[in-house]
Amino acid sequence: MDGARRRREEDPDALAQRVLAGDRRAVARAISLAEDEHPGAPRLLEILYPHAGRARTLGITGPPGVGKSSLIAALCTLLRAREQTVGVITVDPSSHITHGALLGDRIRLVEHFLDTGVYIRSMGTRGHLGGVAEATLLAGVIVDASGRDVLLYETVGVGQSEVEVAGLADTVALVLMPGSGDSIQALKAGVMEIPDVIVVNKADHPAIERTRAELAQVLSLADPERRPVVVETVATAPSGVDELWAAVEAHQAGLAAAGDLDERRKAQLRSELLALATARTARRLGEALDVSPDLAGLVDALAERRIDPLTAVARLLERA
Amino acid sequence: MDGARRRREEDPDALAQRVLAGDRRAVARAISLAEDEHPGAPRLLEILYPHAGRARTLGITGPPGVGKSSLIAALCTLLRAREQTVGVITVDPSSHITHGALLGDRIRLVEHFLDTGVYIRSMGTRGHLGGVAEATLLAGVIVDASGRDVLLYETVGVGQSEVEVAGLADTVALVLMPGSGDSIQALKAGVMEIPDVIVVNKADHPAIERTRAELAQVLSLADPERRPVVVETVATAPSGVDELWAAVEAHQAGLAAAGDLDERRKAQLRSELLALATARTARRLGEALDVSPDLAGLVDALAERRIDPLTAVARLLERA
Repeated sequence: MDGARRRREEDPDALAQRVLAGDRRAVARAISLAEDEHPGAPRLLEILYPHAGRARTLGITGPPGVGKSSLIAALCTLLRAREQTVGVITVDPSSHITHGALLGDRIRLVEHFLDTGVYIRSMGTRGHLGGVAEATLLAGVIVDASGRDVLLYETVGVGQSEVEVAGLADTVALVLMPGSGDSIQALKAGVMEIPDVIVVNKADHPAIERTRAELAQVLSLADPERRPVVVETVATAPSGVDELWAAVEAHQAGLAAAGDLDERRKAQLRSELLALATARTARRLGEALDVSPDLAGLVDALAERRIDPLTAVARLLERA
Repeated sequence: MDGARRRREEDPDALAQRVLAGDRRAVARAISLAEDEHPGAPRLLEILYPHAGRARTLGITGPPGVGKSSLIAALCTLLRAREQTVGVITVDPSSHITHGALLGDRIRLVEHFLDTGVYIRSMGTRGHLGGVAEATLLAGVIVDASGRDVLLYETVGVGQSEVEVAGLADTVALVLMPGSGDSIQALKAGVMEIPDVIVVNKADHPAIERTRAELAQVLSLADPERRPVVVETVATAPSGVDELWAAVEAHQAGLAAAGDLDERRKAQLRSELLALATARTARRLGEALDVSPDLAGLVDALAERRIDPLTAVARLLERA
């Protein structure tokens, strides 16, 4: 890329116009600016945000290995057959640890790489989790503003932080498989939030009967008003994918009919706002702890029990 | 309890002296002050903290239903037979959701309730997660300062925040069982941190062979220097519990011999310090968002796309 072109691409106003026109290269560049916290990113967002919010959104979460990427590939095929354009944003918190152990999953999306109707972006963690949450939110705004009909967020995980990312969407689907005993126990114990839709993928596995029974038992305890639909799929066949998409549409139609959609979006925006502000604060505190002369030795003093934890917290908050 | 007695118990200096003397009622009262963020709590901590740090500590984490509480009961029996006093601090993030669905687990500890050599405290979540982390840290200091030989932290969970709590200990044991496919996949994908010791409980289950094979495969990928010992137990028999405790002692002896113990403790204290400070900031930001006239309407403006997320975050941080 020559210098003149790079400069043009980094002018946020011009870049925003190209994103709004649906230019895929501009979308990619804009997301990179957001990830890199480029000085132009705030201006870019300011222009794009009013144009976002039109895509139908789905968050897909669940433990590794259950076939989320295969399911997304199958959803892309289904949506493209219906002439819908799709954006996929995947967040992989493990990428810096295992150096691509999950790459095999990504390969299932390859068949869509050449289709301009599907835009796929994988968010790296670049070291700090707060940064990923922020970059993912911004990437969603950018892809949405570029005019995609459907926006899919995929997060790999088993805990709660990935639910926050999935919570950028109007519907959250938890993907499990036969043998997902830990996740079912976590739902039962209330440690994992009950999603809007539960997908049991790899439903052709013999252990499906047991998973069905366990899920039925867990869901019998859930609030009947908010009991999720369970859909069984075999993403690689594919089978059940139509039913999954119908469940997503039905969930969103239900939210709209009940007048709950705005309230849900506001609650999500409130928690996103707090999460981003908190993540920024956490980074600032961590940096202060490393570089501020006032705070040098605070951890040592704590380790040597010359200062107690509450006093140390107060000092950090006061001086950072 | 009459008024005079309550007042005496809430004088932090007097209460601290009774904690240091090992008075169980004083320990219970001190933890309640910490949980309730009583104005006397900081003073209490200031006195007790220099006296803590002598107990041998073990964090026990893992998904619900694997038998962590049975294992703790068995460890208490083993340790009492060796004339060690024990403190157990359990954190149950689900208690406010399922209204005691996990109570069955707690019952396994009942046999130790009448033994003054075992002190058991369950930390409720009282609404905010940051508060639990802080109260748990303080409870650990209090129980440790009361002179217990061994301190066990139990956290129910499948994600990363519970690892932070378990990280208060010198050794972290992850408890799994045959059928813990999701957790094993999470270890493999690097989404869940590799612990110091892996316990496969309910090892008399026929699916143990498969779990053994899966774990062996996962651990073959781990850094050989930090590859955890795997111990198989049947907590209710009990069997394997001696081996588990031997593994914990060996891990800590290894840390000490390598000169890594101080470094590990400092790294843990640094992240605890940051986590507590961040949690406090998050609460302050949330409260500001709810009550500050300057911030009224910020979420509405975001929902109506009159302000973009980065500008909203900046405004929240500036005015909170």
